[in-house]
Amino acid sequence: MLTSEHINFFKHLLKERASIENEQLLIHSKDETEDISILPGIVLKPKNVDEISKILTYCNEHKLPVTPSGARTGLSGGAIPLKGGIALSMVKFSRILNIDEDNMQVTVEPGVITQVLQEAVKEKGLFYPPDPASKGSCFIGGNVSENSGGPKAVKYGVTNEYVLNLEVVLPTGEVIWTGANVLKNATGYNLTQLMVGSEGTLGIITKIVLKLIPHPTTELLMLVPFFSAQDACTAVAAIFKAGITPSALEFMERDALLWTQDFLKDNSIIIQENHAAHLLIEVDGFNQDVLMEECTKIMDVLAQFETDEILFADSASQKDKLWRLRRTVGEAVKSHSIYKEEDTVVPRFELPKLLAHVKLIGDKFGFKSVCYGHAGDGNLHVNIIKGELTDDQWENDLPIAIEEIFKEVVKLGGTLSGEHGIGLVQKPYMPLAFSAKSLNLMKEIKKVFDPNNILNPDKIFNF
Amino acid sequence: MLTSEHINFFKHLLKERASIENEQLLIHSKDETEDISILPGIVLKPKNVDEISKILTYCNEHKLPVTPSGARTGLSGGAIPLKGGIALSMVKFSRILNIDEDNMQVTVEPGVITQVLQEAVKEKGLFYPPDPASKGSCFIGGNVSENSGGPKAVKYGVTNEYVLNLEVVLPTGEVIWTGANVLKNATGYNLTQLMVGSEGTLGIITKIVLKLIPHPTTELLMLVPFFSAQDACTAVAAIFKAGITPSALEFMERDALLWTQDFLKDNSIIIQENHAAHLLIEVDGFNQDVLMEECTKIMDVLAQFETDEILFADSASQKDKLWRLRRTVGEAVKSHSIYKEEDTVVPRFELPKLLAHVKLIGDKFGFKSVCYGHAGDGNLHVNIIKGELTDDQWENDLPIAIEEIFKEVVKLGGTLSGEHGIGLVQKPYMPLAFSAKSLNLMKEIKKVFDPNNILNPDKIFNF
Repeated sequence: MLTSEHINFFKHLLKERASIENEQLLIHSKDETEDISILPGIVLKPKNVDEISKILTYCNEHKLPVTPSGARTGLSGGAIPLKGGIALSMVKFSRILNIDEDNMQVTVEPGVITQVLQEAVKEKGLFYPPDPASKGSCFIGGNVSENSGGPKAVKYGVTNEYVLNLEVVLPTGEVIWTGANVLKNATGYNLTQLMVGSEGTLGIITKIVLKLIPHPTTELLMLVPFFSAQDACTAVAAIFKAGITPSALEFMERDALLWTQDFLKDNSIIIQENHAAHLLIEVDGFNQDVLMEECTKIMDVLAQFETDEILFADSASQKDKLWRLRRTVGEAVKSHSIYKEEDTVVPRFELPKLLAHVKLIGDKFGFKSVCYGHAGDGNLHVNIIKGELTDDQWENDLPIAIEEIFKEVVKLGGTLSGEHGIGLVQKPYMPLAFSAKSLNLMKEIKKVFDPNNILNPDKIFNF
Repeated sequence: MLTSEHINFFKHLLKERASIENEQLLIHSKDETEDISILPGIVLKPKNVDEISKILTYCNEHKLPVTPSGARTGLSGGAIPLKGGIALSMVKFSRILNIDEDNMQVTVEPGVITQVLQEAVKEKGLFYPPDPASKGSCFIGGNVSENSGGPKAVKYGVTNEYVLNLEVVLPTGEVIWTGANVLKNATGYNLTQLMVGSEGTLGIITKIVLKLIPHPTTELLMLVPFFSAQDACTAVAAIFKAGITPSALEFMERDALLWTQDFLKDNSIIIQENHAAHLLIEVDGFNQDVLMEECTKIMDVLAQFETDEILFADSASQKDKLWRLRRTVGEAVKSHSIYKEEDTVVPRFELPKLLAHVKLIGDKFGFKSVCYGHAGDGNLHVNIIKGELTDDQWENDLPIAIEEIFKEVVKLGGTLSGEHGIGLVQKPYMPLAFSAKSLNLMKEIKKVFDPNNILNPDKIFNF
């Protein structure tokens, strides 16, 4: 698709930062989404807005597809260059431009690793809460593009609640700011929130202004074994109904924890034969006594359910270990088997119904599933394991099974993705979540920003 | 503009809920924005989605302008039927459909008074925080359309942070849901956030699903007199820098409080000759001891400034009285003089610079201003008083002065409106806040939703 003329243009513009070497193409052919790999024609690593503007202007003129590429930790195929063409790596946009302590804001480039950003602002006593499992490697730009969540979202909200303003290069090469650096804004349509979660289909984000909050100074963490996974899910809404807002409320089915301990060669958590699921519950704040009171209230709620002995993390290293277990579940499941992950989200009280339905569909279609996720948000990651399924079943029956799961999700008031995005792999299910008219509005909005459909084409929906 | 044929169609559809009586036309000719009044041709009061769908289908076909009308408490002219035509009153959409305690959500029709909604969910221990000064009379639908704020926004965020899902009738008569009833959502473009704050220009909102949180059980309130208004503004960011997030942090210039006490015939607050401004500071939560600690920290911060004796509200009735004073400032200023109100918002540390600039421009153009507002959010309501200005100065010089104020606002990282919206009166200043390209994107989005420009035409921008 790319001609030598195109390649020469990019080589001339970016010199050694334009690469058609096989290794570079291969690296940028995939993200963390299952085993999909599609090669781009060239990898570009611009280092400033002007270069991006020139690249997009040229690509728009020549109708070349451009797939933005961050740290490629995505789980819906957003960074896979579906149509070949240009993989636009944001790796050189790696500066934290300004930590504004006076206004509790940070201006950052999209290629900064989320955890690096979090640690930099924490040094000033400030907190940027969204913390996807991949926080040690993912880019903040990817987080904005996918509207990422993570465990802390249950108390602090997902990425979009922190994005105040964005600098964006449009497909025409024009550069805009979407809003202003303010905490409240009733000035025109919310272009900022339209960009957040648009998965690189509307523009290339080049600067991000984020709201920060005071960093909590203390937290308590407990791991609660349940004899019934249904009970664990039911306990989730009950905790909130008691007036507690935990800073994390994570659910892990038995196998999720077992496989992760195997993967990490760490057997420090004793998982009894009759432990069906665990809740990992954290409260945080500024006052240890208040947190102890909250834990007491949580224990009161849990007393209504059959649980085994609760483990309280009594040191920073034990907390780290528990969080490492939780954060590694995805990777562990991935290494264990061929799988397919769904990012279902429902109103949190409906979680037990969702779990039951997933198991029902599994029985019907003959697959095992391992479920875990941000239960406090109603966000359940459903990992469907290939196991004994034939290739034919995997290819042909599974999409029908997934459709049945999503139909139930929507019936429960939920939707397809809580935090992973639609990208490539969830695209076929969009008509379950949106009417034809809603989808058409999205497509028309896409056309407004990107009439030639050069930016991450055929992601979210076909166009 | 409306023919008798049009009127007959509406009369036939809605019977006595379609009115061309002068009194009805007059009522729907204005909101609380200064003294602007433009008569609609007819007032319609549909009572269900189907009727709205039929009305819009007809209006779209006949290219008749439709201005949505709520409680008409807006401050930017959003509900003024600029082009005549239909005033679409949402007054019959007045039901709270479902308070879902299990999921901490409420589904509500747009014509419910915000305070009625707040009180209904409070009975279940739940909290809907956004509380514009007009909460006792404004509609929740108007709050969503304008992305309203209020004092609590500083801790709890503005309306858009609570809107999960919207049922919307489009100009074509088609009905969509914008999202799902979930706390996190990475499923396609954020149509929900595009609707919030779109001021009735994209669709008619008919159902609103809102997130709720546990209602705080206790709060402390203090009124702090400053000898310097600059000091009061400077103290605002200092309080946040000390790690405190008050549940309200309101600023009132001397005259704001004086005029309000006069207006309410209430002189219980002693305002000394040398009191230049007051901060009204509230902290809330679930634990009185924690709040006392927070107050102590706030007092430590305030000790760095020259303040007079701090008044702590020591009873519910005293708290109510202080809040009543604050909530009545707008009305009091309005009754005192011909005025023009700007809804400036800047990053909060820039507040002293903004106030100084407003006074500077006042000196230059010879006007007095009374400033007050949600200082914790950097949101300053600037009320320009006509006073001694001639009509000619008021008509011709004032827009230039306002432009100079907004230019400084934008330079400080701020924007035109924090919570009142653009509507009619701030439209001329949009090019100060957005590039031509950004404005054009907004116009193109408008075209996607409303190609015939029937919905609240020529609000936010001319089209």
